[in-house]
Amino acid sequence: MSRHLPIAMRTAIGLCAAGLATACGQGGSDELRPSGNGGANGSVAALMQARGLNEADVEAALKTYTPTGKTDEYLMFASGGHSGQVLVVGLPSMRLLKVIGVFTPEPWQGYAYGDDSSAMLARGGRRGVPLSWGDTHHPALSETNGDYDGEYLFIGDKSSARVAVINLKDFATVQVVASDLIESDHGGTFVTPNTEYVIEGPQYPAPLGGEYAPIEEWNEKYRGAVIFWKFDRAAGRIVPEDSFAIEVPPYMQDLSDAGKLASDGWIFVNSFNTERAWGGNMQGNPPLESGASQNDMDYLHVIHLRRAEELVAEGKTRTIAGMRVIPLDVAAGEALWFVGEPKSPHGVDVTPDGREIVVSGKLDTHATIYSFEKLKALIGQKKFAGEDPYGVPILPFEEAIRGQVEIGLGPLHTQFGPDGHAYTSVFIESVVAKWSLADLAVVEKIPVHYNVGHIAAAEGDTVSPDGNYLVSLNKWSIDRYAGVGPLLPQNFQLIDIGREAGMQLLYDMPIGNGEPHYSQIIKADKIRSDEIYTPVGFNPIKRGPDPHVVAGGQERVEAREDGVHVYVTAVRSHFTPDIIRVKEGDTVHLHITNLEQAKDATHGFGISGHDVALSLEPGEHANASFVAKSAGVYPFYCTEFCSALHLEMAGYLLVEPR
Amino acid sequence: MSRHLPIAMRTAIGLCAAGLATACGQGGSDELRPSGNGGANGSVAALMQARGLNEADVEAALKTYTPTGKTDEYLMFASGGHSGQVLVVGLPSMRLLKVIGVFTPEPWQGYAYGDDSSAMLARGGRRGVPLSWGDTHHPALSETNGDYDGEYLFIGDKSSARVAVINLKDFATVQVVASDLIESDHGGTFVTPNTEYVIEGPQYPAPLGGEYAPIEEWNEKYRGAVIFWKFDRAAGRIVPEDSFAIEVPPYMQDLSDAGKLASDGWIFVNSFNTERAWGGNMQGNPPLESGASQNDMDYLHVIHLRRAEELVAEGKTRTIAGMRVIPLDVAAGEALWFVGEPKSPHGVDVTPDGREIVVSGKLDTHATIYSFEKLKALIGQKKFAGEDPYGVPILPFEEAIRGQVEIGLGPLHTQFGPDGHAYTSVFIESVVAKWSLADLAVVEKIPVHYNVGHIAAAEGDTVSPDGNYLVSLNKWSIDRYAGVGPLLPQNFQLIDIGREAGMQLLYDMPIGNGEPHYSQIIKADKIRSDEIYTPVGFNPIKRGPDPHVVAGGQERVEAREDGVHVYVTAVRSHFTPDIIRVKEGDTVHLHITNLEQAKDATHGFGISGHDVALSLEPGEHANASFVAKSAGVYPFYCTEFCSALHLEMAGYLLVEPR
Repeated sequence: MSRHLPIAMRTAIGLCAAGLATACGQGGSDELRPSGNGGANGSVAALMQARGLNEADVEAALKTYTPTGKTDEYLMFASGGHSGQVLVVGLPSMRLLKVIGVFTPEPWQGYAYGDDSSAMLARGGRRGVPLSWGDTHHPALSETNGDYDGEYLFIGDKSSARVAVINLKDFATVQVVASDLIESDHGGTFVTPNTEYVIEGPQYPAPLGGEYAPIEEWNEKYRGAVIFWKFDRAAGRIVPEDSFAIEVPPYMQDLSDAGKLASDGWIFVNSFNTERAWGGNMQGNPPLESGASQNDMDYLHVIHLRRAEELVAEGKTRTIAGMRVIPLDVAAGEALWFVGEPKSPHGVDVTPDGREIVVSGKLDTHATIYSFEKLKALIGQKKFAGEDPYGVPILPFEEAIRGQVEIGLGPLHTQFGPDGHAYTSVFIESVVAKWSLADLAVVEKIPVHYNVGHIAAAEGDTVSPDGNYLVSLNKWSIDRYAGVGPLLPQNFQLIDIGREAGMQLLYDMPIGNGEPHYSQIIKADKIRSDEIYTPVGFNPIKRGPDPHVVAGGQERVEAREDGVHVYVTAVRSHFTPDIIRVKEGDTVHLHITNLEQAKDATHGFGISGHDVALSLEPGEHANASFVAKSAGVYPFYCTEFCSALHLEMAGYLLVEPR
Repeated sequence: MSRHLPIAMRTAIGLCAAGLATACGQGGSDELRPSGNGGANGSVAALMQARGLNEADVEAALKTYTPTGKTDEYLMFASGGHSGQVLVVGLPSMRLLKVIGVFTPEPWQGYAYGDDSSAMLARGGRRGVPLSWGDTHHPALSETNGDYDGEYLFIGDKSSARVAVINLKDFATVQVVASDLIESDHGGTFVTPNTEYVIEGPQYPAPLGGEYAPIEEWNEKYRGAVIFWKFDRAAGRIVPEDSFAIEVPPYMQDLSDAGKLASDGWIFVNSFNTERAWGGNMQGNPPLESGASQNDMDYLHVIHLRRAEELVAEGKTRTIAGMRVIPLDVAAGEALWFVGEPKSPHGVDVTPDGREIVVSGKLDTHATIYSFEKLKALIGQKKFAGEDPYGVPILPFEEAIRGQVEIGLGPLHTQFGPDGHAYTSVFIESVVAKWSLADLAVVEKIPVHYNVGHIAAAEGDTVSPDGNYLVSLNKWSIDRYAGVGPLLPQNFQLIDIGREAGMQLLYDMPIGNGEPHYSQIIKADKIRSDEIYTPVGFNPIKRGPDPHVVAGGQERVEAREDGVHVYVTAVRSHFTPDIIRVKEGDTVHLHITNLEQAKDATHGFGISGHDVALSLEPGEHANASFVAKSAGVYPFYCTEFCSALHLEMAGYLLVEPR
């Protein structure tokens, strides 16, 4: 579908509904008919009446309904929040196409129920504690020249400061990295315009490297660090040893954005709690929510990435928890500057041309527009208004901004359209505000239900936003959906931002399997995913043939020192071998290759009484090891309905007593 | 919305689309206008053209689109397959309203990341092996007088033969039971018309009670058992000690259905593999798929539940793995009979009036309609055609049936409408066939994409099916959706079965987070779920106030022998206490009460480096215990975006070195 619709579609719809059938013909034909004279109730009118639809509803229905066999124009990648996963949603139909297992095991995908994915997730544990969940917030699509390229997706875990890499060839997680440098991030990742770095900003300060210090020593010993994870695109992996970090003061850093075009090579990170409050509400301190909300200004962190790289190359780093860290006193005034930002900001967003930075303070009513040129000039002139307690120079606020725009109560995040308009979510007011970047004036507001956090526009974080669609990620749904108990779904609202007649709410999508914070929306045709795995025996995490690949006819059982290795093939509708005999206490290593090469010919492997679940896509190989602890007879079977005889795709693990 | 639409809607739609705007007025109004004279292209036509919609698409869009603030008419509870969960979907909008954590941990719900839910799931492990996934297939809504009553949902785990109870007051799992009697079920649960019993049929035979026996002793030592789990509705719990089972031969039992009305007190279980094949494809045997497909007839198991209860009361049971089991030789001819069913059947479904039983053999082209009256008469007359190798009398097939209907290639499952029609899924042909129960003749087929397994009709398993909607649960989606890698979503297709003009495909819903097998569809207004938990301090698993409830002002830390107990409250926007001090190695017991009583005011609790995630709905209390293994500083925070200051709803666990 082209979104460049005739002008008629860009105005409020003029739908004649009453009297259609009789007016326009007796129906039953697939052909459209010219309308005739008015008359009695017809079928569209009857449908509208029966279902309580008004004209705007009809327009919205026709703009979102995607008939069988037609596919969606955009894909949205949304974080799942504390589900730990990523959601993939088609636009405009707002249908959930996939949940990608990232920080939480997902048996339907065999994710973390076999050897390779379990080991990958275990490596993402912290200090020997395995972690089986995460809190994903900000997905970042890989970029080439500032445009989404559809190759990779990155996502962070706020709860334990980890970062995952998802390969969009197969929509599967291939890497989880964690640094003990920081304890917490904002669940966010942000990429530089050519994805050289994946940026992980900190959130809640702690002594760097996992040390203990009393909280009363906050100012002296607690810190944050912005981590620049080096991404090797050819390998499809983050390279921890080529990564580095910049130490930052014990404020609470929040979102980040990378400069682009004019501001390429610069990074912007906002912060709140420059008050350095840390709570202590049972020892007479104010709770953090008020302690952290005293100052009128917090600090936008302006980072010169190119200079930081030089500092690393010059060896001006300290290694903490295996990570090279540019100390705060080295970074200050060399690669790091501050500029005031009103008040407890949440969003920082670089405009598509890279020339301006938009910050919204959630306790302020404005969006503030910083000029990158001005920031750079002030830095070049060393024109400072002072410095913070850690020696970081503070640029003069008034001279750094182009202006402010009065948005409303609780502005949070800004996205951009292709036509000089910006869109800002307004939490307390529960609206999305559209405003002119040129005029710094709000032109329109649309109500949302209720309490929007982030918003996402089509290709909205790129150098060339598409406009067309915007999704409002609302945090409560209260009265929007049928009751499903005290834990309600979240609410994604799809908004048409391509109409000349103004924004139009098109669709409410409940999110009943997570609490998404942010999403990015990419043209679907930019994603060139694989339909099957080739060659047969492909291991998705190793991204190549598995050393244990099993060819048809090579199925076998081998007793080795480390246990019994069973080489299995899967093909409709049997596993070979279908009877596996071991002895009580044996360690069993299953190596299973799905020999199929037809699209969608997925098999699964499940077994009674053992915590193993594999999903074997066409051509995929998976390994699973477990101890056969108890003698007995354990059926295994294909967990996918793979053919009419799928129930017969079964076998037995026979564990003989010793 | 009433589904009793005007006749005009029940015929193929007569949509006049071209020329609407000019014909009918200039648009922009919310009011419907009478149509006028024909003219040029208008906006509905433009939308149809731009998005490639035909008239049927417009009708389907208007029949499914559910505008903001309007709620769905039906709720569908679908199994998640090897996701281990249950999906809740609204009809007709086909929106996923919730995923209920059942056999797999779900951190967004705090499910199995805190003490009570983790302990509940751990009790569902088998022989000391904790299981963190399941394979759900057949959800069963609780019934009163054969109608769904909206109180409970039951679901089985095929992989490890377990059964879960979900309370529909809060859509939360409250119990998981497992018996070591059997190793495998069909992931199915089926209830008696007043939910006295939840029936779990076996699938793959094994020695009862978890014993080992060589597979070559299949005929002698392998068995199945149909378990009748006693449900205590007032307590909302299955009572294992009041439950019992009936031993059955080592065929592979499959689906079940309970008799109703005329056949109340009887149970029907079908089977395949009466050949007693067990594979062995690497030792020269045919694979199970062909070994199990030799016989022209398998056996429908006819169980007299009331007589079985008497046998139990008479003590004619053997206790195996703690379960009272009616041995096969006791049951045969007393409470268990067989009747032939053609060939490798998959579905068995009792008609709404309880007078007939429909069975489809997936390798046969017919549905076979058994008369309950005839079955009962043959049993009464002891008119047998023979007996199986285990002494179970076989009723004469020809005298037990009313007839057969030629359905098509690969008929699987049958659902019912309110008007004497039945609907059968046809796997190989990829259609749903509508047929007349009176005439035993197919009246219509509708193609589905592709390869339907189960189908579900609105209130379709009750004594009073609604008609209106039917969902086809298709196993592959191939070309229906935008590419998301080699693991494709499943495909739910919503079909309008309320039209006089014939069945109409309304909607394609991708399922990208599981592999549903079956679903049940209930009128939404039958579910009376809670909006909040009351009184404050409610524990959803205990279904009452938690003994550790924390009132506002009663927050405290208590050092006890078993560790440090921390009593915490949560309220927008802080936890009290927000600083928790313990020593390295301490066991920490968190007891957190969400004091909120406003709908949707949910808080979460997440903490760095520890595998704890809680979801605290309004009024909910949760407990979480963990060992503070490593000294350090661990931020915790509210994982739900609960207010504009949710980022400030945070605190610290300080683990001091010893």
